[in-house]
Amino acid sequence: MKNGVSAFAPASVSNLACGFDVLGFALESAGDVVHARFDDSVETVVISDITGDDGRLPRAVRKNTAGMAVMALLEKIKPVPAGISLVIEKKMPFASGMGSSAASAAAAVKAVNHLLGDPLDETALLECVIAAEATISGGAHADNAAPALLGGLVLAREVDPPDILSLPVPAGLSYVLIHPRVAVETKQARQALPASIALKTGVSHWANTAALVHALHTADFALLARAMRDFIAEPIRRRYIPHYEAMKRAALEAGALTFNISGSGPAVFSFCSSRSTADRVARILTEFCDRERIDHGMFVGAIRSRGAVITGATR
Amino acid sequence: MKNGVSAFAPASVSNLACGFDVLGFALESAGDVVHARFDDSVETVVISDITGDDGRLPRAVRKNTAGMAVMALLEKIKPVPAGISLVIEKKMPFASGMGSSAASAAAAVKAVNHLLGDPLDETALLECVIAAEATISGGAHADNAAPALLGGLVLAREVDPPDILSLPVPAGLSYVLIHPRVAVETKQARQALPASIALKTGVSHWANTAALVHALHTADFALLARAMRDFIAEPIRRRYIPHYEAMKRAALEAGALTFNISGSGPAVFSFCSSRSTADRVARILTEFCDRERIDHGMFVGAIRSRGAVITGATR
Repeated sequence: MKNGVSAFAPASVSNLACGFDVLGFALESAGDVVHARFDDSVETVVISDITGDDGRLPRAVRKNTAGMAVMALLEKIKPVPAGISLVIEKKMPFASGMGSSAASAAAAVKAVNHLLGDPLDETALLECVIAAEATISGGAHADNAAPALLGGLVLAREVDPPDILSLPVPAGLSYVLIHPRVAVETKQARQALPASIALKTGVSHWANTAALVHALHTADFALLARAMRDFIAEPIRRRYIPHYEAMKRAALEAGALTFNISGSGPAVFSFCSSRSTADRVARILTEFCDRERIDHGMFVGAIRSRGAVITGATR
Repeated sequence: MKNGVSAFAPASVSNLACGFDVLGFALESAGDVVHARFDDSVETVVISDITGDDGRLPRAVRKNTAGMAVMALLEKIKPVPAGISLVIEKKMPFASGMGSSAASAAAAVKAVNHLLGDPLDETALLECVIAAEATISGGAHADNAAPALLGGLVLAREVDPPDILSLPVPAGLSYVLIHPRVAVETKQARQALPASIALKTGVSHWANTAALVHALHTADFALLARAMRDFIAEPIRRRYIPHYEAMKRAALEAGALTFNISGSGPAVFSFCSSRSTADRVARILTEFCDRERIDHGMFVGAIRSRGAVITGATR
């Protein structure tokens, strides 16, 4: 039996424009690492340390997304063989709209499941991550959980039970993601949205989400650009993001196909038809941010096809 | 120059489950024929006769969908070279939810455009049909207009200007359409729908519409069956359709993948994974209707890939 396991899970972009709550993708590099090991001194699970968060994330298991996801996992495999202690290495921004909580939760369940001899399949693990996400964001959705755990560009048709579809990613498709360092709490930003929408707004959203899936299958970048509209979250959430309109204009003028909010913000992202265009867009947005003195992080890459992975195990 | 032109345009199913207002397909056989000829005795356009409607459709050009579509066409190509007279042969049920008005309008513009030497392209013709449809149904939508004119299974991403995407049709996909002979006026049925919906209802619709497009691209009939849910129109409109729930149960038990309302009803339809399953479903639904004494028409076939076509021309 293993004594310690480490896992990595990627950051992700959710609420993909028209695909609010249902479409998301995994980032190439950013993400979190969780180390899990057996610990006879605890009954179920404890978070023994978190690094990289400047002490800002909750250490209490039932207030921490990784802790809650592992509790959900242990519920599924009773009786629990031994206590488990977790160390979380935050290696990406949080409260950022980049799926930080899902990354921690996905890495945690991936590590703990492997530590226990892989008793659960990926759907069961996904249910654990979704449950943890639901508690912190105020609503069940899988558009960060699924890419963090499974990778790729995914459509979460249903969350209970999860019905997750992996969508094709056209060659060349690249993202630029900017994280302006202003905090937007997911729950607060989510609660800012109305509980109902005009039927015709809904019609536009399902027309565009359907068109986006068609664009991915046919590698039609022009259609992808036309389809990635957001009439629900963007009109409300852009107010929380400094210089949103000006950044959007700059990105599109620089050749980006799209510019939308990542998750519930403040991160924003563009799709581009090639890596070289993405690099140009990133350069221009960096110049913009420097000029406007917006403290920010910048991420450029291709959609990561793998989700959470085991990075190490000790006996 | 031609002196007379005849065109056929197919019946169609719109409001395809989750794809309310944006997804539709053309039927294999049912449809309308319109004959157009130059007529010096009229200034613009006149409907000189309608057959097959028992005198129930309006002959006034500005109250008839074919007349309005041709008026819209003539607006686009001023000056009009000569007066035009139309004869409409209704060869399908109307006020049925089978896209009768779109079929007449599509056949009419197809015939008149050809009579005039094809000055307009298909997008311009589609705009004419959409404009006519908007007047009679109380809202612009292209999910009957596009399949009637262009054929196939289409996604109307936008109506103004039209952005119409032809979706792939998996081999074997067949429909059964039943038209119970009770009248439901489109405008009345449409007005019965709420102006707004819950955000989470919207989320389900765009998740399912996206999944349906993915199912068509991957020929995944099980996913197609899961995705074709309707949380908006069905809960309201099924009350106008006799024995809706019992028919749905019978169709699904007989092996149909889906059962939904066609357009705004009262026609209903199922998709099946093969023609033989469709034939079985049709037989069982016919028995059901006979037992319940529901006067009805039954249509079985594959999605028609062609839209409106010229069927004859005289010099």
